Amino acid sequence: MGMYSPLLPSPGTSNLMPRLVMKFGGTSVADLDRIRNVARHVKREVDAGYDVAVVVSAMSGVTNQLVAWCKDASAMHDAREYDAVVATGEQVTSGLLAIVLQGMGVNARSWQGWQLPILTDGAHASARIQDVNGAELIKRFDELKQVAVIAGFQGKHEATGRITTLGRGGSDTSAVAMAAAIGAERCDIYTDVDGVYTTDPRVVPNARRLNKIAYEEMLELASLGAKVMQVRSVELGMLRNVRIFVRSSFVKPEDIDPKANFIGTLICDESEIMEQQTVTGIAFSKDEAQISIRRVQDKPGVAAAIFGPLADASINVDMIVQNVTADGATTDLTFTVPSADYERARVVIEKAKSTIGYERLDGATDVAKVSVIGIGMRSHAGVAAEAFKALAEQKINILAITTSEIKFSVLINGSQTDQAVRTLHALYGLDKG
Amino acid sequence: MGMYSPLLPSPGTSNLMPRLVMKFGGTSVADLDRIRNVARHVKREVDAGYDVAVVVSAMSGVTNQLVAWCKDASAMHDAREYDAVVATGEQVTSGLLAIVLQGMGVNARSWQGWQLPILTDGAHASARIQDVNGAELIKRFDELKQVAVIAGFQGKHEATGRITTLGRGGSDTSAVAMAAAIGAERCDIYTDVDGVYTTDPRVVPNARRLNKIAYEEMLELASLGAKVMQVRSVELGMLRNVRIFVRSSFVKPEDIDPKANFIGTLICDESEIMEQQTVTGIAFSKDEAQISIRRVQDKPGVAAAIFGPLADASINVDMIVQNVTADGATTDLTFTVPSADYERARVVIEKAKSTIGYERLDGATDVAKVSVIGIGMRSHAGVAAEAFKALAEQKINILAITTSEIKFSVLINGSQTDQAVRTLHALYGLDKG
Repeated sequence: MGMYSPLLPSPGTSNLMPRLVMKFGGTSVADLDRIRNVARHVKREVDAGYDVAVVVSAMSGVTNQLVAWCKDASAMHDAREYDAVVATGEQVTSGLLAIVLQGMGVNARSWQGWQLPILTDGAHASARIQDVNGAELIKRFDELKQVAVIAGFQGKHEATGRITTLGRGGSDTSAVAMAAAIGAERCDIYTDVDGVYTTDPRVVPNARRLNKIAYEEMLELASLGAKVMQVRSVELGMLRNVRIFVRSSFVKPEDIDPKANFIGTLICDESEIMEQQTVTGIAFSKDEAQISIRRVQDKPGVAAAIFGPLADASINVDMIVQNVTADGATTDLTFTVPSADYERARVVIEKAKSTIGYERLDGATDVAKVSVIGIGMRSHAGVAAEAFKALAEQKINILAITTSEIKFSVLINGSQTDQAVRTLHALYGLDKG
Repeated sequence: MGMYSPLLPSPGTSNLMPRLVMKFGGTSVADLDRIRNVARHVKREVDAGYDVAVVVSAMSGVTNQLVAWCKDASAMHDAREYDAVVATGEQVTSGLLAIVLQGMGVNARSWQGWQLPILTDGAHASARIQDVNGAELIKRFDELKQVAVIAGFQGKHEATGRITTLGRGGSDTSAVAMAAAIGAERCDIYTDVDGVYTTDPRVVPNARRLNKIAYEEMLELASLGAKVMQVRSVELGMLRNVRIFVRSSFVKPEDIDPKANFIGTLICDESEIMEQQTVTGIAFSKDEAQISIRRVQDKPGVAAAIFGPLADASINVDMIVQNVTADGATTDLTFTVPSADYERARVVIEKAKSTIGYERLDGATDVAKVSVIGIGMRSHAGVAAEAFKALAEQKINILAITTSEIKFSVLINGSQTDQAVRTLHALYGLDKG
């Protein structure tokens, strides 16, 4: 079987109705009233002529309770049993939404991961989808106009027949994979925000909602901690060219004008974005800590001596900057870790002092990383240089810099984060109006 | 496939360890502490040399919550979706118990109904088991000494691949079917009582726990409202000759002496009961109401004219007694209904007065039914006559009598219930010591 084979029906048998995947997260299905609101959204799309597959998460709070029970049962619990327990959350929502839809006169049925099936590898609790069979759903769209209500987050490991889960936020990935499998026109992600913003509106009140954003840009944003979409789901959308539309689940279905443009952000191929700006958004993270190792002996293998022990301790290293010092024989090496891992990281490096060979260890937890993202950077030189100038004018000191093709990040003092974000947001013309 | 084919391994490959099914209800798995207690019971049997399959219910309260959600979603909910929602309760318990067992060093894994599979008919919410595959479990007993933790109450409808549930108390049936499928030596039903008693100990402090009771007697007791076992599970045990042992889940595993006789009641074939008493137990129900129709025209079709409308109103009629009156042309007809249905039943009969043709309607809600059960009645004449005499001596008036091969019931004034039960309990030598 191929990856996400969309097993399309032959044109002669299909009625060629456009297909849509709609995904609703835990807060959108938190109770029966919210589930009824979700059902009205689904009915709206059915009435508009779509064949619909809905992907649902567990009612908010339910997954946490199930996870707590597993931990209580045993600190070292079997991930296969954890999956059997935790997957029930989505199963409940799928059945309840199907019942509510039927009550509204919409033909609907629930599908569990093992029923479709959604096949995954055997990495329980963080499984990866390997194949989704959309054939049965398409048959039911065409023959019965039946809405498919799919339990997100879960699948089946084919070799063992056991239930798997995809890890936190996995329902986004379920939805995108489903959209690929049924050849959906779009995958709508209903969430508690109404789209992707140029930056956090709590920091910059002038932040704008983006109408469109390219997959690559969204990937960078998600990797930097924007909680709108799970990184893997964006990767999958890019790989399978699934158009993902992020929109609010709190809008009442009655308030949506089917003839107007929908409010939200489309994550799509850059070719679909006509007027590409140089910079799309500004991300930032205050949960950073910086460690600087002074006067490291500049010899082969020294990077491995530092980062090997950190990896063994499961400490995630982010920015790494290395400067040759004036004497030419030693180097200063700076890197960042999540601030929660700061003390552990220091201990690891101190323990490895004799194998690394260095003079002094400095560090700080009051630092922040600010990142500027935009596909347009690829063709525009000098984007980063403008930023360094603007930050300097604001007397914001840059502790470290890293760059990639469509992004650059600066490490600054944490107290200057908001000022830096606002400065860059205005600099690149991201402010409203 | 045959019914419950026990697909036994060939003797050459089996290690011939005895097999045991253990079933735990909702109160026995109400929280993690209780689940740990269950796990210790399982380990005790594993240590004693058994290959064990455990059947579990949902944690108490969970099923009620799930059912309430379904009702909230729609009063007329699809039973297939109801089953998908409600079956999650047992799925959670099965995973948690497997985790706890593993933590105790016992090899264990959970099994959902669709995984084994336990195949049922398509009568969602009250499905009947059609076939249970025990082959994989037996293979794992022999090769891995792996305990099977099975979600009770649920199965899969083969034709549609959908999840089914067996109706309230269905886990008992799951357990007995499983015991038949793996050829278990015994099916232990752990519950909140320590066995089956000669009558309710709250009414007769002298009531004795029975060491053994025949399937037929237990069936009568269960039909009369004894809440120890579901009727269908006893029927299935009788049909497949599964020895069922009712015992307490509140006994600590540490307090059980493996060399002593276990405390509980064995439900078994009558041939296994050496000293069969004439009477095994006394059952009673106070939730009865009596309706008497006086001077009914004694013509063909009159019974249908009375009981047809009651059946149409879903009113369950129990005892029916008909006496010819002195004039020979009319008859008095008395029947009982659950007291909750008394008023509705009166209205139904009054509405049908013109088609039935009768003079007067009498009724009472302060009546009780007392039943005497015993396989020994089949070969002992005069058992009922002794009862009538003893009750008369106590000035207890009998309003109606029905009899069957191994049981007779009398309808009496409700206020005399306890006195009647105690009188009969003593009469047939059921008192302790």
